[in-house]
Amino acid sequence: MSDDRGDRQRSQARRRFLQRTMALAGGAASLPAMLKSVLADSGDGLPPHVPPWMRRQGAPILSPAYGVPSPFESAVARKARDRTPTATAAASCTPLADLHGIITPNGLHFERHHAGVPAIDPEQHRLIVHGLVERPLMFTMSDLMRFPSVSRVHFLECSGNGFFSGGTLRSTVQETHGLLSCCEWTGVPLSTLLAETGMQAAAAWVLAEGADADAMSRSIPITKALDDALVAYAQNGERLRPEQGYPLRLLLPGYEGNMSVKWLRRIKLGDAPFETREETSKYTDLMADGSARQFTFVMEAKSVITFPSPGRELRERGFYQISGLAWSGRGRIRRVDVSVDAGASWQHAALQEPVLPKCLTRFRLPWTWDGGPARLKSRAIDETSYVQPERTELIAVRGLHSHYHCNAIQEWQLSADGTVTNVV
Amino acid sequence: MSDDRGDRQRSQARRRFLQRTMALAGGAASLPAMLKSVLADSGDGLPPHVPPWMRRQGAPILSPAYGVPSPFESAVARKARDRTPTATAAASCTPLADLHGIITPNGLHFERHHAGVPAIDPEQHRLIVHGLVERPLMFTMSDLMRFPSVSRVHFLECSGNGFFSGGTLRSTVQETHGLLSCCEWTGVPLSTLLAETGMQAAAAWVLAEGADADAMSRSIPITKALDDALVAYAQNGERLRPEQGYPLRLLLPGYEGNMSVKWLRRIKLGDAPFETREETSKYTDLMADGSARQFTFVMEAKSVITFPSPGRELRERGFYQISGLAWSGRGRIRRVDVSVDAGASWQHAALQEPVLPKCLTRFRLPWTWDGGPARLKSRAIDETSYVQPERTELIAVRGLHSHYHCNAIQEWQLSADGTVTNVV
Repeated sequence: MSDDRGDRQRSQARRRFLQRTMALAGGAASLPAMLKSVLADSGDGLPPHVPPWMRRQGAPILSPAYGVPSPFESAVARKARDRTPTATAAASCTPLADLHGIITPNGLHFERHHAGVPAIDPEQHRLIVHGLVERPLMFTMSDLMRFPSVSRVHFLECSGNGFFSGGTLRSTVQETHGLLSCCEWTGVPLSTLLAETGMQAAAAWVLAEGADADAMSRSIPITKALDDALVAYAQNGERLRPEQGYPLRLLLPGYEGNMSVKWLRRIKLGDAPFETREETSKYTDLMADGSARQFTFVMEAKSVITFPSPGRELRERGFYQISGLAWSGRGRIRRVDVSVDAGASWQHAALQEPVLPKCLTRFRLPWTWDGGPARLKSRAIDETSYVQPERTELIAVRGLHSHYHCNAIQEWQLSADGTVTNVV
Repeated sequence: MSDDRGDRQRSQARRRFLQRTMALAGGAASLPAMLKSVLADSGDGLPPHVPPWMRRQGAPILSPAYGVPSPFESAVARKARDRTPTATAAASCTPLADLHGIITPNGLHFERHHAGVPAIDPEQHRLIVHGLVERPLMFTMSDLMRFPSVSRVHFLECSGNGFFSGGTLRSTVQETHGLLSCCEWTGVPLSTLLAETGMQAAAAWVLAEGADADAMSRSIPITKALDDALVAYAQNGERLRPEQGYPLRLLLPGYEGNMSVKWLRRIKLGDAPFETREETSKYTDLMADGSARQFTFVMEAKSVITFPSPGRELRERGFYQISGLAWSGRGRIRRVDVSVDAGASWQHAALQEPVLPKCLTRFRLPWTWDGGPARLKSRAIDETSYVQPERTELIAVRGLHSHYHCNAIQEWQLSADGTVTNVV
């Protein structure tokens, strides 16, 4: 954050609190009930009364041994995205507007399954690497965990995250952008395994196959496999969650989520793409002229304001912090612009360090709401200088038949009553 | 990792796999049963048989909506540290040897409570800032969440983590070092709140008080309060867990854990330390001469090898990756040295980027075990050039009456049968 913005922010916050302090000094009728009792009960008005939870011992340790959130946070949960004929070929969304920072806790990582979540015994699981290799090899989980490992924080985003239509007036961030999560992943570089098997000269593509009931399969260019692809067994410290591929998944940083094949059991090298169902009938981009773009792997730069947003309303005018997430499948976020006037003017948001490649980046901007209507939106620029497009710009290129890779700028309408709605 | 080490590592791994490949080519009797059936069943021996979990649909989405680990990982849980008269004044430890990377999932964050875990309604919770301020102020959670926030990844370590005695022969990492965890924390800088209240010239110390049944209280120098102290409401993206202070805690990066007062309800500024129970009778360091050191806040540089370690044994000679954690309350880790010969020689471990200040750092070193006994230990050096001491060096200064701030080098004994024990 620049010194100018820091100064402005501090002076805005100070102004608000001076108002509050003056209200307190005057004993105004608007004081919350608790504060009034504080002022009445003790000499200097402080500390406040002793709340009930200080009058008795709390819960013991290990209740439970593997901890869970407060019951007061029970509304913060994944939610189904669409109504689908079955709940095994379905998706659930991360409650992004309820989260802070960049890490997604494992229990809230979005889901997208094509045949449900298999219950895999890690002792029985195997990974085979074969095809155009010099030596086909099969690995147990114990084998894989002996290899040199790396840990990296990366986002995963379903290519179906977002709506070209813009969704509905009442869509929340969880609905418009919730097929997006970010974890610290640990595993073995795929390049390390391929160094063990060797590669024949003709090897140009890699098939990855999952051990779920639809044997989810995708083709991956060998260049990506040898670049930053991981065979991952841990997320946010612990072993993968079942719905994230336990005990083993592929992780292709920056690529559309379904290519990071979960429950990974097979890697096959070939000289051409394998033309699986998930890259012919699905996960292609239908253009306005009726043709379909195939193999659009990279998730382009995108951003969304998570506060204010639908359901996270403003109660009164005054100081607020606009906050949101930006990310790019091509590397680091360089800059995020925020507008509160539908794009008539833009300000640079502060980016939380460290800004990591192919990772969520938290942005923040201090703002004083004057109580009038406002149109809020954010625009991400990545280190390749790619600029996140307006919805109209994206549709001009992609048409309205597209389903995947919608990275349009998201706009929120703040009304004078403090409610926030989606701009459709 | 240096190129030399990288080369050595690759050649070691390759040698092991060449042996494996030759076994496969020869159809040796040592092939695992599954691989033999693969070779028998299909033309090129691949892919393997279809496991049972590929023959039926898996679990639907949202089972459950807030996800949980695989049942196969049920042994990975917090464990009570000591037998204490009550389970509300007690501690539980993080299973560090089962974790990867640097993030501790919230469900496994260590616990240390003095009067159990209060069940606090966030709507009713208040934070009061008073004492030598210009304007005493009281904040609701909604108030606090309007302030400019920051997110940072920091470790938290109980000052009682570790044993001057070294523990027992069978102590695991969870027992010797498990009062240690690391999360991404989000909250408001305490300095921002103090800018709102103003400070009188005499203000030199800060009292922080928790809303648990013992009103856990500690004194903090005003310099720390104005430096990097956070009033935190989120960990790893979501709101704090109850046992980590829900809905609000102090976070003092690099300081002994109990000073990061949980369930924070009161900040009072004074001109001297408040001499609370937890800084007079407890959390002081009894020296050999009978005097007690008070206000030893900073957790000095420390490290531990998590693999191999007791319970994580080696099955056969060959290539392994030695891995562990290093941290310092004074800033970044600069270097970690690893010895496999009881300190006769040392090698530099690779540090996983990004290396963040007052944060766990994952270190790794490729190693080929020749099958003989070995003594493994690690030594952390931080950016102030402080070197983690040997146990004998630490005891020479601190004596054996001390209970807190044991940061001695940890040594593991690897036996020829692959088991690992604690060196006492």
